[in-house]
Amino acid sequence: MISSGVWAECIPLSKAHDLKEVPTVASLPTAASAPETMKSALQKIGYLGSVPCSYKSTPMAAHFELHIEQGPHLVSAGQRVGVVTAVQAYRWFRLNVIGRDTHTGTTAFEHRADALYAFARMMVRAREVAAGRGCLASVGIIEAKPGSVNTVPGQVSFSLDIRGPETELVAEVEKELRRDFDEIAAAEGAGIGKPCRVEWTLDFDSPAVKFHDECIECVQQSAHAVVADASVADPKSLVRPIMSGAGHDSVFTSKRVPTSMIFVPCKDGLSHHPEEFCSADDCATGASVILQAVVRYDRRRFA
Amino acid sequence: MISSGVWAECIPLSKAHDLKEVPTVASLPTAASAPETMKSALQKIGYLGSVPCSYKSTPMAAHFELHIEQGPHLVSAGQRVGVVTAVQAYRWFRLNVIGRDTHTGTTAFEHRADALYAFARMMVRAREVAAGRGCLASVGIIEAKPGSVNTVPGQVSFSLDIRGPETELVAEVEKELRRDFDEIAAAEGAGIGKPCRVEWTLDFDSPAVKFHDECIECVQQSAHAVVADASVADPKSLVRPIMSGAGHDSVFTSKRVPTSMIFVPCKDGLSHHPEEFCSADDCATGASVILQAVVRYDRRRFA
Repeated sequence: MISSGVWAECIPLSKAHDLKEVPTVASLPTAASAPETMKSALQKIGYLGSVPCSYKSTPMAAHFELHIEQGPHLVSAGQRVGVVTAVQAYRWFRLNVIGRDTHTGTTAFEHRADALYAFARMMVRAREVAAGRGCLASVGIIEAKPGSVNTVPGQVSFSLDIRGPETELVAEVEKELRRDFDEIAAAEGAGIGKPCRVEWTLDFDSPAVKFHDECIECVQQSAHAVVADASVADPKSLVRPIMSGAGHDSVFTSKRVPTSMIFVPCKDGLSHHPEEFCSADDCATGASVILQAVVRYDRRRFA
Repeated sequence: MISSGVWAECIPLSKAHDLKEVPTVASLPTAASAPETMKSALQKIGYLGSVPCSYKSTPMAAHFELHIEQGPHLVSAGQRVGVVTAVQAYRWFRLNVIGRDTHTGTTAFEHRADALYAFARMMVRAREVAAGRGCLASVGIIEAKPGSVNTVPGQVSFSLDIRGPETELVAEVEKELRRDFDEIAAAEGAGIGKPCRVEWTLDFDSPAVKFHDECIECVQQSAHAVVADASVADPKSLVRPIMSGAGHDSVFTSKRVPTSMIFVPCKDGLSHHPEEFCSADDCATGASVILQAVVRYDRRRFA
């Protein structure tokens, strides 16, 4: 989504170019000391082009995007096309919990400011709070320092991804978690007068997006046309309106031009996993729907 | 403790030499791809000697060890010497939690097998169970894969350090946690019929140690002699018997020769922390006590 963010002039080009890979134990051995930037990676693969990346100099009339659903709804209902009407809101944070390194064998629980224990309580709480508001909260990255078997970690950093159908709901979850995490941090280390503390950094803020009505209509009509000859009683039942849980380039393009999306089913609703899979038939359905949607929209423009 | 373990013939020399550094983001950039071995590190610093490391070929009559307490008891009571009578039991484990990678934005909580969420619940439970039996349980190392903001981690590995005053208590905590961790893992992912599972590997097992009565007596007499001229009503009150929470070389030497230890206070009871500190006076007290203890024990041998 970085490139569409630059195109929509929501992300400065220099910020995008300077983005660095996240160093993990699994990444290249050099990641920790010399993480690769977006720009150097683009150069390496020959993708650092010369066409200006901006909706002003390189405009589009509309944007249609085809994607696997990445969720279980279409596949479990035996449906073939999702007409995407909206994208849920999400915010990405990096959090640091600062406690105190100390020996695991000689430090009673009440004398600890264990940053990892505080993290564990925070993650359990995050699910409770998010679930209570029909939202999601997830941790994908965690690092604990100093990283030794017999040392209580004094520093933990982690990513927090909060999502929900409305921007306001995500803000409410964030607000509640900021209060609860402060409470959890304050309790850990209180016994020695050196409580943990927690710091939040907002990395990415993507408010809820409603797609363009005319684009949605073009996708729906096209989907109905493509599944019309299916051998079921009501072919239209193979098409459903759907909200996207994930962010997509369409989030950024929708800020500048009429936009909508098409979803097709994927195996087990899985994505971000080696078993992610979409059948050739579903790929073909999706390609037909997006082609027809572009043509339909184009006809309307010049009608 | 590796070297004393080899000397006591509790750890084979080849196993000690082959030990590898733990790769973390903080460690050398090469740690993940080519972690250094103990042997290569010893060679590098000129410490790979030729004297056989064995209690048989390089015997000792007794072993006395001086250490900072690494805990708060001496410093908070204003005492000067701890006569160490025993070392608590501990076991170190590596655990793997295996769930399923999936997208954070499109996967409802009930469709997740989130290995990191399962870990968080396990860590919270570990403290509850350990505290209930007067023991400790700590996590010092954690790694979550694949390590991306918007992917629910499908694999988590972590270290678990369980300690307690009696070997049997540590075994009870382990037994209870094995049962509870299985329950927690089974609940996460149950909704999709793909529950998490958890695997345990025992890395290190150190049963509780009681030091040698005669050695303890020599340390106590020496401590009383060293603090005798302190300007307090009862100088002996500056000396106390104490149990060690941490493991030490004396754990291994005690298996082969009469052994005991001396503790001196350290600032805030801190260790494994950059602020670890012992005053010059306390160092001098400790050195005097260990010297006298060796002389006292030696006299007894030839009396």
